[in-house]
Amino acid sequence: MTAPTHRIGEPAWDAWGDPARAHHLTPDQRALIAQVLGVPATTAAPRAAETELRVARSALPPAARAALAAAVGPAHVNTNPAARLRRAGGKSTPDLLRRRAGDVARAPDAVVSPADHDQVAAVLAACAEHGVAVVPFGGGTSVVGGVEPLRGGFAAAITLDLRRLDRLVALDPVARTATLQAGLRTPEAEEVLADFGMTLGHRPQSYEYATIGGYAATRSAGQDSAGYGRFDSMVLALRAATPRGTLDLGRAPASAAGPDLRQLLLGSEGVFGVITEVTLRVRPLPAAEHEEAWGLPDFAAGTEALRALAQGGLRPTLVRLSDPAETFVNAVLAGAPAPQGCLAVVRCEGDAAYVAAARDAAAAALRAVGGAPLGAEPVAHWREGRYSAPYLRDALLDAGVLAETLETAATWSRLPGLRRAVTAALTTALGGGGGPEPLVLCHISHIYPEGASLYFTVATAAGDDPLERWRAAKRAAGDAITAHGGTITHHHAVGTDHRPWLGAEVGDLGVEVLRAVKRTLDPAGVLNPGKLIPASAPGTGRGGGAGSGTESGAEEGRR
Amino acid sequence: MTAPTHRIGEPAWDAWGDPARAHHLTPDQRALIAQVLGVPATTAAPRAAETELRVARSALPPAARAALAAAVGPAHVNTNPAARLRRAGGKSTPDLLRRRAGDVARAPDAVVSPADHDQVAAVLAACAEHGVAVVPFGGGTSVVGGVEPLRGGFAAAITLDLRRLDRLVALDPVARTATLQAGLRTPEAEEVLADFGMTLGHRPQSYEYATIGGYAATRSAGQDSAGYGRFDSMVLALRAATPRGTLDLGRAPASAAGPDLRQLLLGSEGVFGVITEVTLRVRPLPAAEHEEAWGLPDFAAGTEALRALAQGGLRPTLVRLSDPAETFVNAVLAGAPAPQGCLAVVRCEGDAAYVAAARDAAAAALRAVGGAPLGAEPVAHWREGRYSAPYLRDALLDAGVLAETLETAATWSRLPGLRRAVTAALTTALGGGGGPEPLVLCHISHIYPEGASLYFTVATAAGDDPLERWRAAKRAAGDAITAHGGTITHHHAVGTDHRPWLGAEVGDLGVEVLRAVKRTLDPAGVLNPGKLIPASAPGTGRGGGAGSGTESGAEEGRR
Repeated sequence: MTAPTHRIGEPAWDAWGDPARAHHLTPDQRALIAQVLGVPATTAAPRAAETELRVARSALPPAARAALAAAVGPAHVNTNPAARLRRAGGKSTPDLLRRRAGDVARAPDAVVSPADHDQVAAVLAACAEHGVAVVPFGGGTSVVGGVEPLRGGFAAAITLDLRRLDRLVALDPVARTATLQAGLRTPEAEEVLADFGMTLGHRPQSYEYATIGGYAATRSAGQDSAGYGRFDSMVLALRAATPRGTLDLGRAPASAAGPDLRQLLLGSEGVFGVITEVTLRVRPLPAAEHEEAWGLPDFAAGTEALRALAQGGLRPTLVRLSDPAETFVNAVLAGAPAPQGCLAVVRCEGDAAYVAAARDAAAAALRAVGGAPLGAEPVAHWREGRYSAPYLRDALLDAGVLAETLETAATWSRLPGLRRAVTAALTTALGGGGGPEPLVLCHISHIYPEGASLYFTVATAAGDDPLERWRAAKRAAGDAITAHGGTITHHHAVGTDHRPWLGAEVGDLGVEVLRAVKRTLDPAGVLNPGKLIPASAPGTGRGGGAGSGTESGAEEGRR
Repeated sequence: MTAPTHRIGEPAWDAWGDPARAHHLTPDQRALIAQVLGVPATTAAPRAAETELRVARSALPPAARAALAAAVGPAHVNTNPAARLRRAGGKSTPDLLRRRAGDVARAPDAVVSPADHDQVAAVLAACAEHGVAVVPFGGGTSVVGGVEPLRGGFAAAITLDLRRLDRLVALDPVARTATLQAGLRTPEAEEVLADFGMTLGHRPQSYEYATIGGYAATRSAGQDSAGYGRFDSMVLALRAATPRGTLDLGRAPASAAGPDLRQLLLGSEGVFGVITEVTLRVRPLPAAEHEEAWGLPDFAAGTEALRALAQGGLRPTLVRLSDPAETFVNAVLAGAPAPQGCLAVVRCEGDAAYVAAARDAAAAALRAVGGAPLGAEPVAHWREGRYSAPYLRDALLDAGVLAETLETAATWSRLPGLRRAVTAALTTALGGGGGPEPLVLCHISHIYPEGASLYFTVATAAGDDPLERWRAAKRAAGDAITAHGGTITHHHAVGTDHRPWLGAEVGDLGVEVLRAVKRTLDPAGVLNPGKLIPASAPGTGRGGGAGSGTESGAEEGRR
C-alpha cells in the first residue's frame, strides 16, 4: 500500500480550489464585460466573510455520535463548524452564490472520516441503525448538487469524507491495472502511479481536487477521453460498501456472466453504496507526444472532421473544437488576435508509432474540411490553463456576472439541432429585459464513433436575482436537451439538479428499477437522499416504505 | 423497414445447423481417433430417428392458448410436435446427447411467434396472467441451457420465437448506427446492412443461426472482437418488453445520467424482459484487408505478443493463437504438415491507412517474440471453416467421441495459471480408468488491454455415460476457473449450466440485486425460469414470493 507524498489540501468554502490562485480581472477585461454584457465595471457582488456565518449547531443525536465514534474513532467525527462549512455543498455557480450570500443552512451535522473499507461499512451500519443520512464526499467538486448534505427526512446528515482512503492498493504491471482507494485526488494518484512509470490519463477540469471514488460514482469523462477513454470504461473491478454488505464486482477484462453489475455502481452517486476501491486500466507514461492547433472555417466543418476522426481507426488522445463565439472570447481573454472561424486543439500521446500515425490521421481529417495548422502554441496555452476556468468563473461572479456551464451529448446526426435548441433556450431565458444578449459559448470535447458531447458556457449580467435567473435558464436548457435527443448529462452526473429529467431519459420503469436496487442495498434509505433517483409522483404509492427516506429528500431539494 | 431477401432456415433438431452440411469423418480421421483417443473406428453412437420420438402432448391450458391466440393470431400459436421439438433446447453436447437418446421431455407446450414489439408485450401479459413460463428463442444456438423450456413450477412453458421480428428499422449513415429487430440472424442483418454499404462485423461461431436479440441478451463476442468490439460494446440503445411495460434505454453515445441501465438488459438472458430491438454501431464495409498466419515458438511467447498488441494503440481486427496441441490437431485435420510450436492468425480490415498501420504493428509484435510469417493460406483455410467446427463435433459424437468446448477470460497475469488449472481439471476428470488421456486444446481469440479469453476444446472417449462424464468434467473446470480468477463465461452466457458459479462471481448480494430487478420487471416470475439467477439457498426465505416461479425452476435444472 503506497501513499502519495504530496497531498492536495482542502479547497475554499466559497470558491473553486486554492484561494491563493484566485483570478483577478484586469481593467481591460472589466471594460470588455461592461461593453459586451452591460455590467458596469465597478460592480462588486456581495460576498459574506467566514466570520459572519452562523453554521447551525450539529443535530447529530448523541447515540449516533457514539456509534460513529466507535466506528472510526472519536477524533474522526468532526462537528467543528469550519469543517462542516467546507462540506456544505458543491461548486456549481448556484452553490457558490448561496454560500457567498451567507446561506449555510445545509452544512452537515458532522464530518466523519473512515480510514478504510471496513470503517466505511461500520459508518453505514451505524447510520442505518440510527437513522442518519450519509453523504459520500471526495473532492467536493460536484456541480449538480451531488454532495449537498440533504437529510431526506432523517434527523441529521453526516458527510462521509473519504480522503483518508488514499492508497495505491496494488499495481499489476503485466495486466496494466492499478487498484486505488476512493479518496485519492488525481494528482496524488498520478504521483503513486508515476513511481511505476504508469499513468491513468484521466484529466477532467476538476483534476486537481476530484477523487477516484467520485469519478467512478459519477461516470466522469476526462479531457483526454478520446485516447484514454471515459472513467467508466477504465474500470476493471470495484469494491463498494453498502448497508447490506460488501459488493466486489469485476474479475475479468470481459465477461458474459449475466448483466454487468459494475455498471449499477458506476454512476450510482452514493445512493446504492460507497465505492471504496477501484481497479483501473493504467498505461505507461507516454514516450512521445504531439500537439497542434488548427483553424477551421466554421463549426459544421470542424464537427465533420471530428466525426471522421472518431469513426476512423486512429483517434487522437485529445481533440477539442470551439465554436466561433468561444474561439473569439478565448482569444480576447488571452490577449491574442481573434482568429476567423473556429479553433481546434489536437493532442496525441503514446508510443512513437501511434503518435505519428494518429497525428497524420488528424491532420488529414482537418485539412479535408479546410483546416489550417496554427502551430503548437495555442495548445500549450490551453493546456496551461486547462484546470483554471473555474477561477475565472469565480472572478466573474465577484464582478456581477452570472457565469455557469452545462453539457450534454447526442449522436452526430442530432448534434447540430441540439446545439441550436440549447443555445436558443439559454438565450431566450436569459435575454429580454432590454439588456444585452447573454454570451453562449459551445465546444465539443468528447468524441465517440456515434456522436459527441456539447459543452456550453454562459455569461450574462447577474441582475438582482442570479439564482432565479439561472434556475429558469437551466430548466429551459434541460427541457431543450431532452426534447432534442440529448442526454441530460454527459459527465457532470445527476445529483439534485438533473433529477427532474432522469425519468424522461430512462423512463418510469427505469426509475422503478433504480428504486428496487436502492431498497435492496439501502433498505433504511440513508444513502445520499434526494440525489439521482427522482422522487415518486405524489399519490402513486410507489417508492415508499423502506425507501421513503430517499423519496422525501426531494422536498428538501431545490426544484 | 427493410427485410432480408435470403432467410436462413430452421436448424436440425438433433445436430448443429443444416443437415445437408453434416460432416463425415474420413477413414484416416477414424484411424487417428482410434489411435489417440482409443475409440474403435467402428464405433457408432445411437441416434434416435424423429419418427421414433414421443413429444408429450401440449399442456397449455385452453384459456392461456386463447389469450396467446388473441395476442399473435391463432396461426402463430403452434403446438405441432415438430415445431416444439426444434425448440426443446440448445446445441451443447449434453443437449444433443439427450435428444439423440430420444429424451424430448422438455419440449415447450407451444411455439408462439409474435410479429412485433407490441405482440411480444401482449404475449408477456398473457403469460403473466395465466401463469405460463416464457422462454425467448432466437437462433436456438445456446450451449449453456439458455433456451431450455423449463416450466419453473408453472403448468406450462411456451417458446417465444422472435424470428418474425426480422427488419432493419432505421439506419443513420452519419452516426453510423442501425436499429435492427431482435429476430434477424446475422447473415440476414448483414444483407440488409450491405445495401447501405455497412457491416456489423459481429462474427461468432454461431454467426449463421444466432440472432441480434440473442447476442444482446447473452453479451456475445465475435471472432473479430479486437477490431469491432464485443456485441455489448456496439449497443447504443435497446428496447425491451417486460411484463411491467416497455424499457427504451440509451440515447447518447455516452452519458453520466446515473447507472447505465442498458447493461442490466444486456446479458439478462430473457429473465428481466425480451429485447425486441437494438440500435447498434455499424461501419462501412472494409475497403482494405490483410491477413497472415504466424508460427510462434510456444504459447507463452504468443501470449506475450497478443498482450503487446492489445495494450498498443493499433489492434488488428482479429487475432487468434492456438496452443501446440490445437495447432497440431488442426493441421492433421486439414491434412497439412504439423508446424512446430503455435499457430497465430491475424487479420486487419478497414481503411487502407489503418490496415497498413495495424498490419505493421502486428508483425512487429509477433517478430519480437520470435514469430515467423507463414503466409495468408492458413488464415484463408481457417476462415473458410470458421463456422463449421460444430459440424465436426456432431460427427465425433456419432463416432463415440465426447467433444465439447468451454471458455473463460482473465487478466494477462492470471492467464497462464488459469490455463494450467483448467487443463489439469479436465484431464483429471476425464482421465483415469486406464484409457488414453483426453485431448484438451486451447486458444486465445479475444484480447483486451487487461487480459484475454481462453477457449478450451475437449475430446475423449464417450464411454458408457458421456453425459455423466461431461457433467463431472464441467464441474471440475468451473471450479478451477472460479478458483483461479477467471470469469465463469466470457461469451457463452450463464443459462442453466453456469448458474452454480454466478454467486461466486458477483457475490450473494449481487445475486440479491438481480432478484430485486427480476421482481420489479417480472413480478409473476414467468420469464425464462431456471436461467441465470441462482436458486435461493434453502431456508433463507429470500427470493420467494413473486419470484418463486424462477427459484423453483432450479429443481427442474440439471445440477
